[in-house]
Amino acid sequence: MLPIAEQRGVHLTTDPIDPEVRFVGDRRQLASGLGNLLENAVKYSERGDAVEVRAALASCCPKLLAIVHAETSTGVLQPLEEISGLTHDSGALFVVDAVTSLGGVDVRVDDWGIDAIYSGTQKCLSAPPGLSPVTFSPAALECIEKRKVKPQSWYLDVGMVRNYWEGAKRTYHHTAPISANYALHEALRIVLEEGLEARFERHRRNHERLRDGLEELGFRFVVEPEYRLPQLNTVWLPDWLKDGPGRARLLEEYNIEVGGGLGDFAGKVWRIGLMGNSSTPNHVDMLLAALRRMRDEA
Amino acid sequence: MLPIAEQRGVHLTTDPIDPEVRFVGDRRQLASGLGNLLENAVKYSERGDAVEVRAALASCCPKLLAIVHAETSTGVLQPLEEISGLTHDSGALFVVDAVTSLGGVDVRVDDWGIDAIYSGTQKCLSAPPGLSPVTFSPAALECIEKRKVKPQSWYLDVGMVRNYWEGAKRTYHHTAPISANYALHEALRIVLEEGLEARFERHRRNHERLRDGLEELGFRFVVEPEYRLPQLNTVWLPDWLKDGPGRARLLEEYNIEVGGGLGDFAGKVWRIGLMGNSSTPNHVDMLLAALRRMRDEA
Repeated sequence: MLPIAEQRGVHLTTDPIDPEVRFVGDRRQLASGLGNLLENAVKYSERGDAVEVRAALASCCPKLLAIVHAETSTGVLQPLEEISGLTHDSGALFVVDAVTSLGGVDVRVDDWGIDAIYSGTQKCLSAPPGLSPVTFSPAALECIEKRKVKPQSWYLDVGMVRNYWEGAKRTYHHTAPISANYALHEALRIVLEEGLEARFERHRRNHERLRDGLEELGFRFVVEPEYRLPQLNTVWLPDWLKDGPGRARLLEEYNIEVGGGLGDFAGKVWRIGLMGNSSTPNHVDMLLAALRRMRDEA
Repeated sequence: MLPIAEQRGVHLTTDPIDPEVRFVGDRRQLASGLGNLLENAVKYSERGDAVEVRAALASCCPKLLAIVHAETSTGVLQPLEEISGLTHDSGALFVVDAVTSLGGVDVRVDDWGIDAIYSGTQKCLSAPPGLSPVTFSPAALECIEKRKVKPQSWYLDVGMVRNYWEGAKRTYHHTAPISANYALHEALRIVLEEGLEARFERHRRNHERLRDGLEELGFRFVVEPEYRLPQLNTVWLPDWLKDGPGRARLLEEYNIEVGGGLGDFAGKVWRIGLMGNSSTPNHVDMLLAALRRMRDEA
């Protein structure tokens, strides 16, 4: 960026960055984001203006940091423990979306210092959709109890929901979806019957089976191996495959549904789920066989 | 109130009330509410002050009026058509809670000029709890489309929910509770198999069977006959029956659960539900037989 700035007569300076400040994220995405910011700053500055880059973190004093554990639009598994440490160092509460992680990969709520976490029943737990299991740390409960402004949403008035769940005097918040609770209970029994470790291992093995087959067919993974989700595989399409027609054909001819890309990824990647009871070698083989036939006919 | 006002030296006057202005509600409750207001006004006024009573309706220009159709804390069936007319005369939208009415008594959304109405699946439709059927009038949809302030609650962002349901381009709002939808679909088939008129008639007949038995046992209904809900019977307890012990015994010995009174009614009334599939002569007879035995043993 420096040569462009010089050419445009814009002074570009950086503050020496505190070695304590750390950035967590995809190196290329971070570089690209920072690059865009800088490019715009240089582009829209007048000759003689100054553009200054500084790293600020503690100064914004966030009250909470919220993050998705298993990020299904990209297929990234976030390193929660590391991020939790940085979050608590800055005094914020750590909130985690574990919708797609719970039951598919390890989720250590207390070990990882998670203050509030919610999941869904319809992903790796393989129960019907409709419920959201949640849990809160003592720090989060204290925050809920001490809040002075009434929550804007009855639905998310967590203090009232808590009283409904465990209040000394029974209070009413909503009519509990009884049948969904029974279904979740049975799904959790099935999870424990298999065993958590065995379940994670099954998700890992089937992901590897899928990965090997996909790479053989020319697909390339979007995410680096260490941050890759076993239950949601995001892959760049090979040249022989078109997004829309490919997915339509998979669904119509083979009764297999895969997700398309979102945002910048639209039309370029597929998101292939292997969650809970559908993470089996048979499901993997069915998809790979269909893709092989499609490739041979392309 | 006038003698008290005179004694305290407070001038109490009333504006002549426009004969067009009508009050809808329980005569005693309205009188009691108005009496409380007046009493406080007189009590906290200084000698020589004036208290003026006026009937205001159109002047407050409400944007919407919301009402519960089958009001389960009192057992009242609201005369919606009449209230709808008054509401629209004042230019407001008419919003109805039909949670306990749908499938038990007639609910005529368009005939009664209802702009927004919601129900539940777990009452007179006898499907599992967890869904809320809704419908909106063109005027309500226009209001939703034209709103400038973003809704505070994602959950109740009706415009987004609408796009999820019927948008030209598929948008995402939440994961639909598929199994609950199938269950509701089947419950609605059962309702139509019986026929709406037959279903209302069944609720009415079983209510009358219960009413006759209860009155014989010394219970008295809280609500006047013309505003009485067939699916939720609110009755004053007879002398021989104590609220808490009576309900506990019914539950423990006879496996029958009835609701207690709420607010001012706590300890004084029971709320007896006869909803959907549990509105049967057998259910009525079971309860009456248990109560007769309890009365004979009292």
